[in-house]
Amino acid sequence: MRDAMPRLTGTPGVYLRNAWYVAGWADGLAEKPQAKVFLEEPVALFRDAAGVAHAIGGRCPHRFAPLGAGEVIDGALQCPYHGLRFGSDGRCVFNPHPGGQVPQASVRVYPLVERHALLWIWMGDPARADAATIPDFAWLADPRWEVVRGATCAEGHYELYSDNILDLSHANFVHPALVASAFTEGARKFWQDGETVHAHYAQPDDYLSVGISAILGVTGRKQAFDGHVIWHAPATLSFDFRTGEPGTPYDQLSNMPSLHAFTPETADTTHYLWATGRDFAVGDAEFSQTMRGALEYAFEHEDMPLIRDAHRLMAGQDFWELRPLVLDGDGGGIRARRQLRKMISAEMISAEQGTPA
Amino acid sequence: MRDAMPRLTGTPGVYLRNAWYVAGWADGLAEKPQAKVFLEEPVALFRDAAGVAHAIGGRCPHRFAPLGAGEVIDGALQCPYHGLRFGSDGRCVFNPHPGGQVPQASVRVYPLVERHALLWIWMGDPARADAATIPDFAWLADPRWEVVRGATCAEGHYELYSDNILDLSHANFVHPALVASAFTEGARKFWQDGETVHAHYAQPDDYLSVGISAILGVTGRKQAFDGHVIWHAPATLSFDFRTGEPGTPYDQLSNMPSLHAFTPETADTTHYLWATGRDFAVGDAEFSQTMRGALEYAFEHEDMPLIRDAHRLMAGQDFWELRPLVLDGDGGGIRARRQLRKMISAEMISAEQGTPA
Amino acid sequence: MRDAMPRLTGTPGVYLRNAWYVAGWADGLAEKPQAKVFLEEPVALFRDAAGVAHAIGGRCPHRFAPLGAGEVIDGALQCPYHGLRFGSDGRCVFNPHPGGQVPQASVRVYPLVERHALLWIWMGDPARADAATIPDFAWLADPRWEVVRGATCAEGHYELYSDNILDLSHANFVHPALVASAFTEGARKFWQDGETVHAHYAQPDDYLSVGISAILGVTGRKQAFDGHVIWHAPATLSFDFRTGEPGTPYDQLSNMPSLHAFTPETADTTHYLWATGRDFAVGDAEFSQTMRGALEYAFEHEDMPLIRDAHRLMAGQDFWELRPLVLDGDGGGIRARRQLRKMISAEMISAEQGTPA
Repeated sequence: MRDAMPRLTGTPGVYLRNAWYVAGWADGLAEKPQAKVFLEEPVALFRDAAGVAHAIGGRCPHRFAPLGAGEVIDGALQCPYHGLRFGSDGRCVFNPHPGGQVPQASVRVYPLVERHALLWIWMGDPARADAATIPDFAWLADPRWEVVRGATCAEGHYELYSDNILDLSHANFVHPALVASAFTEGARKFWQDGETVHAHYAQPDDYLSVGISAILGVTGRKQAFDGHVIWHAPATLSFDFRTGEPGTPYDQLSNMPSLHAFTPETADTTHYLWATGRDFAVGDAEFSQTMRGALEYAFEHEDMPLIRDAHRLMAGQDFWELRPLVLDGDGGGIRARRQLRKMISAEMISAEQGTPA
Repeated sequence: MRDAMPRLTGTPGVYLRNAWYVAGWADGLAEKPQAKVFLEEPVALFRDAAGVAHAIGGRCPHRFAPLGAGEVIDGALQCPYHGLRFGSDGRCVFNPHPGGQVPQASVRVYPLVERHALLWIWMGDPARADAATIPDFAWLADPRWEVVRGATCAEGHYELYSDNILDLSHANFVHPALVASAFTEGARKFWQDGETVHAHYAQPDDYLSVGISAILGVTGRKQAFDGHVIWHAPATLSFDFRTGEPGTPYDQLSNMPSLHAFTPETADTTHYLWATGRDFAVGDAEFSQTMRGALEYAFEHEDMPLIRDAHRLMAGQDFWELRPLVLDGDGGGIRARRQLRKMISAEMISAEQGTPA
Repeated sequence: MRDAMPRLTGTPGVYLRNAWYVAGWADGLAEKPQAKVFLEEPVALFRDAAGVAHAIGGRCPHRFAPLGAGEVIDGALQCPYHGLRFGSDGRCVFNPHPGGQVPQASVRVYPLVERHALLWIWMGDPARADAATIPDFAWLADPRWEVVRGATCAEGHYELYSDNILDLSHANFVHPALVASAFTEGARKFWQDGETVHAHYAQPDDYLSVGISAILGVTGRKQAFDGHVIWHAPATLSFDFRTGEPGTPYDQLSNMPSLHAFTPETADTTHYLWATGRDFAVGDAEFSQTMRGALEYAFEHEDMPLIRDAHRLMAGQDFWELRPLVLDGDGGGIRARRQLRKMISAEMISAEQGTPA
């Protein structure tokens, strides 16, 4: 059975709206539409007759049923409750009832772009949605890369989840199989470049973690390591994990890129899409299955319980008002939080002034 | 184990009080009392020594235990916690403790009437409880009718559940086995008659739904259909489902009457009692079992998830403030909502004025 | 997997702070630290390198992870998230990250005393923590006593749980195996002695309950009974259950002492530690297992559901504002509630005045 909608309140929180959020895996949206909640807002995802993916308001204006639980008929999304149909422009296009007059009703349209195997949704002003600003995850759709991936919904504020990726030092404490000197002893650098935030980890000649060494077949052999995390507002991150024999020039290191995309469902729950690519053992399904299992375990049993509990111990209070201790390793997370706050403030000010942010 | 009491708040919502609500199936209340919550109020149901059913306040004034979880001793309801006993007049009649003085304590008495196999409870001013105003469901207790029935408690506001029955067009979208032209193409009529609201559906010569056709043994044969829903405030509905060979005069059509009674437990949960009667295959237990299974499936897997989600997507907001789109098929639901609101307002005004509403 | 932290709010309730609360069984805290919540406050319990138990603030000041979910390294508690270590004085003593400078950070220290097989925590001003005021439960650690014991966390306010032990008359209604005339017909006395509250039950010559008779091997034989409950603020109770042949002098009666310790986790949930001792059948594991099963059943299936439901029916309202009916048997509970309220008020006044209470 379809998952129940989350419980919502009439007073949603504040989010960055003029931004691309990951809405799901493109191939996860097939003939069957989806009922989702992003930023505490119900959204319906569906594909029209031509297979083009769309996102429209997910609550039927008639009796508030989740439109995404319906089905697509003649390219329009039919409400699962009384059968009104809504086109990809959000307008009601069909009324199956006697009289049959099509009501002057519509739901919101969210710009939705299918790119790099992902669906990207724009939760703000459609006029400002520029697909050129979608971060580049081309490898996700490139056959040279074998991709292991997943999706889940987890308890905890989305910023806690992006903090987690920006501070890889957590690996040494949270993930026994991923302990490596690179994260706590290697050279670390954090910086901001426009609206993106970077975390960089390097260790030219040391052992990788047990888990990664096994995957790469370099157990017991020191390697060069170069890790680069890039955060894109609000909470979509890439992580390039480059390794090679010590002394290998940077551009000859092998890369295992990954995606970590966090999209708030509510103030307390986060959609998490992840993927890791490799250019070796391509087509090796058993290898992929082992990797997927290890990654799922790390998230479900190691990261998630800790972040969920940190979220609960914050007790609904604001991160900054709790005056967190800031360590060197927070250079990424803190920059991302400040940048996001700045962008949200700018949006709020421009909304008050009635001018585009 | 007994179900836990629902979580309550100190500030209950507003309900119509001077009205008969269905409290349960009469034969569901045997020697064992019941602890229930109606309109966010704890209520204890029990039968006295003569077998007469009573409803009294369900929270012991001593230590707040659910009286309905106790047992009946000498015709009085004994608190399950420390054994105070309360009579059907709500007064404490026995104190088992040393000293043994019976405290001057009492709980509220709710008028309760056993009629038509149901228990009807009056949640308002006892002086105004007139059993003559209980809707007529005589068929429920008439041996000429074979009755399949059930009871459950479901998430969602009770008005959403009565809306559902008043707009049968939902069958064509929610219940694959019940799709019929009658609900969306047939003649429809909605009207109000005093305090009752009516929805009427007719289709003189067309196929019934696949499910109903199978039940009636008319698969592949067009039939005359006449459906009549009557809403009684606050949320008790009857539904006469009449069919016959095309051209059969109205009074010779066969009827499959049904009851749909919704009693609010809390603002978010609803007690649902339902029954469907037939005057054929009387005594056929296997037939009954199949019908019961189909009806339970339709509710649990088709209606309920949708109404629960519509309730969640309303996010605690008022129905009217959400400015719902109104379709022709809402003629019943809207009248019922307006009538109920009017009756509640009248009660509130008369309560302020200290005069009987 | 470790239990999730409870959901907390930013506005915790008011509790007695300058008091010893039971934090757990001493041997339940081994090498693995524990993440707990007492009085809506996260607390980490751990043992240092010398095996001494400590309690410190349970929320890491860095990223709010539950410190008690970490591990002890070199006698300090390491945060499970990014590896900061905190000593038993609450100060950060180690930073594993590059630079490695130890931040000027600390968490609160709670006085913790290991005594009588229990861990006792002081949630108030450490300067006022006097281990001499810990109630005497020496039998818990005395090899002459065979002790059956348990720990759980239950829904309901902690005062409802101490009320339950102070009014043993509930046994006759809640526990079919423990019905005895002593609790409702025997001589009862309640009194206060300084800050402790006493409930005393005596029945010189009557049958014990079926359950206790079986345990003591006196089925069908009348006994002398002397029961004495002592409440220590805030909610730690001892219960001496003395029996013998009728006429046996008091000091020659056999005792089965028990502990019932209730420590609030949140306003709605309570940690419950219990134990019962005996000086017969010492070493008889099967006997112990039967007793443990019976006691667990009585709590989980008889007490707990009733108290949980009474708690829910109170709907978050204040006990006194609900104007409870007071019976003779409440002489213990009411005294305890008044004494606790008085002590909490005194703390609040002295906190306002900046003077020690």
